[in-house]
Amino acid sequence: MSHTAEPDTAPAYEPTGRTVPTRGRDRASYDRELVHSILDSGYVCHLGFVRDGAPVVLPTLYARVGETLYVHGSTGSRPLRMAGQEDPGLDVCLTVTHIDGLVLARSAFHHSVNYRSAVIHGTAYQVTDEDEKRMALDALVDHVVAGRSADSRPANAKELAATAVIRVDLAEVSAKSRAGGPNDEPEDMALPHWAGVLPVAPVYGAPVPSADLAESVALPDYLTALG
Amino acid sequence: MSHTAEPDTAPAYEPTGRTVPTRGRDRASYDRELVHSILDSGYVCHLGFVRDGAPVVLPTLYARVGETLYVHGSTGSRPLRMAGQEDPGLDVCLTVTHIDGLVLARSAFHHSVNYRSAVIHGTAYQVTDEDEKRMALDALVDHVVAGRSADSRPANAKELAATAVIRVDLAEVSAKSRAGGPNDEPEDMALPHWAGVLPVAPVYGAPVPSADLAESVALPDYLTALG
Repeated sequence: MSHTAEPDTAPAYEPTGRTVPTRGRDRASYDRELVHSILDSGYVCHLGFVRDGAPVVLPTLYARVGETLYVHGSTGSRPLRMAGQEDPGLDVCLTVTHIDGLVLARSAFHHSVNYRSAVIHGTAYQVTDEDEKRMALDALVDHVVAGRSADSRPANAKELAATAVIRVDLAEVSAKSRAGGPNDEPEDMALPHWAGVLPVAPVYGAPVPSADLAESVALPDYLTALG
Repeated sequence: MSHTAEPDTAPAYEPTGRTVPTRGRDRASYDRELVHSILDSGYVCHLGFVRDGAPVVLPTLYARVGETLYVHGSTGSRPLRMAGQEDPGLDVCLTVTHIDGLVLARSAFHHSVNYRSAVIHGTAYQVTDEDEKRMALDALVDHVVAGRSADSRPANAKELAATAVIRVDLAEVSAKSRAGGPNDEPEDMALPHWAGVLPVAPVYGAPVPSADLAESVALPDYLTALG
């Protein structure tokens, strides 16, 4: 049984009651390309679900394949088990956030952060088709380090059985972002406080080989490119 | 009316049904110092709450003051409004995650991520006391850039009225972390795939002054130290 609707390819996602923010609407976007770029430049999302009426938010890896987001975990983990047990699936919210800079204004009030975030509302279903599951697991590895799934031993039957994969369709999605310098009040411009942006970005360090790695195994190109 | 209990100063938070993970218990900790260090080395959390029965996860700034976490936002923003309207407060989950490295194993299955995360379950209340609100706003600015609140114009009455602050006590809290290299299976050790860790950390770039900043305003020491 497939829960997937025909993929929508309109240039923007359709706004809904819960993807239109009550505040900061000028920072909201439904542009498909922008959403994809935010999702594709990260690999950790914060997955929210409701358990016994209360919210739970857990960090987890994800990968986008077309208009679907995949998340994986142990078959024993709570949200993955809940997605499998519940019908029709588990209500989730997945949020991906990149911080690009700290915005320092002359006034405390106008301090801000430059960021790009994507928020996905939807229903998570367990992936039961083995081909889709393998494809999703490859995508999860390649989403963190492009090219890596082809350069590692694929999951065997036992590992595959111990891994649960859930899928959420990208339908109810919004992006939000802020860029640029501080928006100080005109009457604050002459204050003696420094104003501007302190950029911030994740940076990779030098790869650390396992102590037990044979010397004959060279650092692969896809890591040299990242480091 | 204060919602604050006498602060607990035991070396560890008391585990509860929802802070004991179903999986990966060896990675869970309730150590107070560890939780504090995870919270203090970040400034963006993912705030989860339930709206119309469905989960919502939004990125937002936070600051820890003792055994309390503060979050601020516009008085019009959804969770902050909900925390003010509802009695007794709004059920929330706040999660802070640091990614320290990508763990590349010989097998796809043993790929992992080195991380430190803290998950806080609790009830958010609006801060109505003006002194506490000002203290929390200073803490929020200083939590992002230490020393900054003293070097900016404090909020005036209008700005203070436009800002909502919510507080969550640190009581039901857990940390989770992973460190070290890949845990490959003995039978995979001879495979020709590189194995190890690719460290990753947020790095600050050179500060970018506002185009309208007077040349007489020098870069403050607290930014030189960060950059």
